[in-house]
Amino acid sequence: MDTLRKIAETLYEKNSIFIFPHVNMDGDALGSSSALCSALRKLGKTAYILTEDDTAYNIRFLDRGYCVRVDCAGLQVCGCASENGGSENRAAVDIASIMAAIGAPDVCICVDCGSTDRFAARAGIFALGAMSMCIDHHVTSKPIFDMNYIDGGAAATGEIVYDLIKELETVSGCALLDKEIGEAVFAAIATDTGNFQYSNTTAKSHRIAAELLELGTDENSVCIKIYQNAKISGIRLNAAAVNKMKLFAGGEAAVAVVTQELLTFCDAEMSEADGIVETMRNIRGVEISVLLKEYKTDEVKVSMRAKAYANVAAVAAKFGGGGHIRAAGCTLKMNVSEAEKVMMEAVSEALRKETE
Amino acid sequence: MDTLRKIAETLYEKNSIFIFPHVNMDGDALGSSSALCSALRKLGKTAYILTEDDTAYNIRFLDRGYCVRVDCAGLQVCGCASENGGSENRAAVDIASIMAAIGAPDVCICVDCGSTDRFAARAGIFALGAMSMCIDHHVTSKPIFDMNYIDGGAAATGEIVYDLIKELETVSGCALLDKEIGEAVFAAIATDTGNFQYSNTTAKSHRIAAELLELGTDENSVCIKIYQNAKISGIRLNAAAVNKMKLFAGGEAAVAVVTQELLTFCDAEMSEADGIVETMRNIRGVEISVLLKEYKTDEVKVSMRAKAYANVAAVAAKFGGGGHIRAAGCTLKMNVSEAEKVMMEAVSEALRKETE
Repeated sequence: MDTLRKIAETLYEKNSIFIFPHVNMDGDALGSSSALCSALRKLGKTAYILTEDDTAYNIRFLDRGYCVRVDCAGLQVCGCASENGGSENRAAVDIASIMAAIGAPDVCICVDCGSTDRFAARAGIFALGAMSMCIDHHVTSKPIFDMNYIDGGAAATGEIVYDLIKELETVSGCALLDKEIGEAVFAAIATDTGNFQYSNTTAKSHRIAAELLELGTDENSVCIKIYQNAKISGIRLNAAAVNKMKLFAGGEAAVAVVTQELLTFCDAEMSEADGIVETMRNIRGVEISVLLKEYKTDEVKVSMRAKAYANVAAVAAKFGGGGHIRAAGCTLKMNVSEAEKVMMEAVSEALRKETE
Repeated sequence: MDTLRKIAETLYEKNSIFIFPHVNMDGDALGSSSALCSALRKLGKTAYILTEDDTAYNIRFLDRGYCVRVDCAGLQVCGCASENGGSENRAAVDIASIMAAIGAPDVCICVDCGSTDRFAARAGIFALGAMSMCIDHHVTSKPIFDMNYIDGGAAATGEIVYDLIKELETVSGCALLDKEIGEAVFAAIATDTGNFQYSNTTAKSHRIAAELLELGTDENSVCIKIYQNAKISGIRLNAAAVNKMKLFAGGEAAVAVVTQELLTFCDAEMSEADGIVETMRNIRGVEISVLLKEYKTDEVKVSMRAKAYANVAAVAAKFGGGGHIRAAGCTLKMNVSEAEKVMMEAVSEALRKETE
């Protein structure tokens, strides 16, 4: 483990930095990557965030011309799809031309993850970096890179990046924090703490949010973009799935299913199903909620949430999945009705053990 | 306007204090009243919160034996209905016997409201107080009581009560703030800021939350009680209403209706309809959401929310209602289909004016 001061000093000496958030970016992955990218560019560095999949609509405003999407071949370009309030810097950037100009990057940084497995299509580019770093808050991450700062006590990687940017200010003597970085850091913390609801929230999370407000960050506008931006198809999908959900384990658990047929009926995409598992968790008496997402006839992705005491990471682990204690998932290679039966049994058993 | 120090000094000199939150208490009304009542009892005062209607299930844990419900006759008792994690102090308290013992109260305080109109059934008792006070954050409240502290810049009355309790600590030399008061203050701030999402949130809101966490307050447990505690009937009601909602004004507005028939079908109560208007506001492109609640054949209560720029208080005012710019309501004396037509016209007109 290295200090953030040491990491800041190293970054300050380098010229080109590529940032690698995990696939299926959430607000923390993109928010912390964007904040860091913005600060590095202010210091005159060549800095990009490399991605390999679609960015969720409601967080695209955090990409202000930072993201370059690498396709599976590794060195081609798919352009930077930015909407929903991002800046005007929309020119498609070709990672190959960037590398032709700058050579291999000086530093490649894992952000909000601790393994190149979390960005398989970009692992080849990551390996080209002259130096590797990791900035993360997942307790399962190990310090296996050239420089590492992993703090499981941070509610979000955004909190660590905020501290790192302050160190960069000290090292460089430049003012870096501004409204835009504030938005990115706030988005990171708000999404990973469920708006300061979850038990990972600390006094520091709130104090950073207070400082960001004083910096002029429009936290309300960030929340509107992230949370008040649902497609009507998603709202209808949520309603339809909840209408058909089942309570089981004496009302301590709830399960709902999103089939391909339901998606077609609601004209929705699977990514719009995400809130359903939280809606079910919010039911009085429900400790574990389970959402079954039918991707293919014999492939079902399972999302689980626990409210107060159950360990859904342990349930997911039985099926080769994982996650956090109160939010976890796994993939089942079977049809959706088999998957429902299997998960109802596993969850009922987990709840029985809790009460023993 | 008086200083909080002066109000604290006055309260410290008195023996009996009755606290009057507004009818239909929300988290801020009950949270700030409970925090104040707890601090006053720690100082050896006889302190009660007087109520006149049902306390919403999800905030009852904030009543730790503080609330006395006064019926319409004014001086009788309905007991203190406390559930959902409140303390064991459940003895029904008779306000008449309290007053027989202590005489008329030394101080009656309006909390989170600025007029006895907001607690009509208790106005007679309020008038018996030897002295009146007001602690509020509604900009429309006027300093018409013997002592007043009204701060429209506070995100919640709970923030003002937090400062007042600190002043009481200074004046008395006693430590008053604890985990329990922390829960009440946090519930007040969290509910009135939509978990730090709304534009009324300030750096101070976050700093108080940080201090409360350091005090040992379990903010996650407060959020579980308040937000993850919905009856299944309410979840089904929400889904059913959303399934039938209409978009209008080119998709900039949404309207849904909860009839008595729908309530019967979902086995739900009208109080469970509250979240529907927010669900609709959260749809992409929707600026104003409207929920019509059929209380009687010719009485419809209207709840409205605006997302980012529209003024629904102005729309409500046209029909004799009111509220905040982004959250307002009114009552229409007509049947529900007439009400729907009337509100769709009024909202469409308001949105046309916004874009002119």
